[in-house]
Amino acid sequence: MIDLKKYIDTHPDFPKPGILFYDISSLMINKDIWQETINQFSTLVKKHNPEVLAGIESRGFIFASTIAYKLNCEVIMIRKKGKLPGQTISHTYELEYGEDCLEIQKRKDLKNKNVILIDDLLATGGTASAAIKLLQKTNVNVSAFLTLIELTNLKGRENIGVQTESLLSFDE
Amino acid sequence: MIDLKKYIDTHPDFPKPGILFYDISSLMINKDIWQETINQFSTLVKKHNPEVLAGIESRGFIFASTIAYKLNCEVIMIRKKGKLPGQTISHTYELEYGEDCLEIQKRKDLKNKNVILIDDLLATGGTASAAIKLLQKTNVNVSAFLTLIELTNLKGRENIGVQTESLLSFDE
Repeated sequence: MIDLKKYIDTHPDFPKPGILFYDISSLMINKDIWQETINQFSTLVKKHNPEVLAGIESRGFIFASTIAYKLNCEVIMIRKKGKLPGQTISHTYELEYGEDCLEIQKRKDLKNKNVILIDDLLATGGTASAAIKLLQKTNVNVSAFLTLIELTNLKGRENIGVQTESLLSFDE
Repeated sequence: MIDLKKYIDTHPDFPKPGILFYDISSLMINKDIWQETINQFSTLVKKHNPEVLAGIESRGFIFASTIAYKLNCEVIMIRKKGKLPGQTISHTYELEYGEDCLEIQKRKDLKNKNVILIDDLLATGGTASAAIKLLQKTNVNVSAFLTLIELTNLKGRENIGVQTESLLSFDE
């Protein structure tokens, strides 16, 4: 099995000083590695018997929509406030400075479905934790958060509140 | 063949008064329709012999990444300024009020590749036209812009500058 960690570029001090950025672009720019990335991540997702994948704007959309196609699931978008039309449910959460708000559409037809939250990267877990709380305000069953990359030293998974797994973990 | 137009929800006066919003969420929330959407859109994309699909943030990512997986292509992300790490190429363009800026990463290994620009919706064509100009600043061959939905009465395709096709067109 190909070691995908070797194909992830890192950028020091991005987007701000002291942050080492793990860049998924380098997985997407090589067609064989893009196939392998989706195949490996899909294998992890499939173990959780998903009916619906929820992707967090905007890199989470990439994995949620592609894996949903591969595994024959439904997809929902979790977006920043004001981006989704129709009736929405929102969750406001604290950031280091200020606050942010995530939204999903209100949909009756998702009742009791097994929903998996998908994102590209788990760092401190602030956004993922807020996304889980948002999904828990609805009538679905949120069973897991699955991420491509996990920065284990930041201990983000302690903040999520549901079962959390990652395909690739980095500890530095 | 399933008529996907019947599955697209519309929302009047979103995101602002006078705009009729065509919502792709309703294609994603039905697993059979999500399969059909990607299959039909992929058939259109395949005709253009793509090597690389470029997706515009953020709904364009959904289609570019999923169709790239299905057709065994590479994917590049076109993002708002400041979101992509490493060396980037940018293009600033005029909006009705003010201006905006799109960026892509500088990548030597894309030289002369056949790149197709992908997005969910063509309205006036402002963003797509800017994305094409951005790609034309690089060393790739940008051959077409393909969109899921086209609002034909807005005549956006006249502004794009490369061959433009859509899967679903609305004229109202």
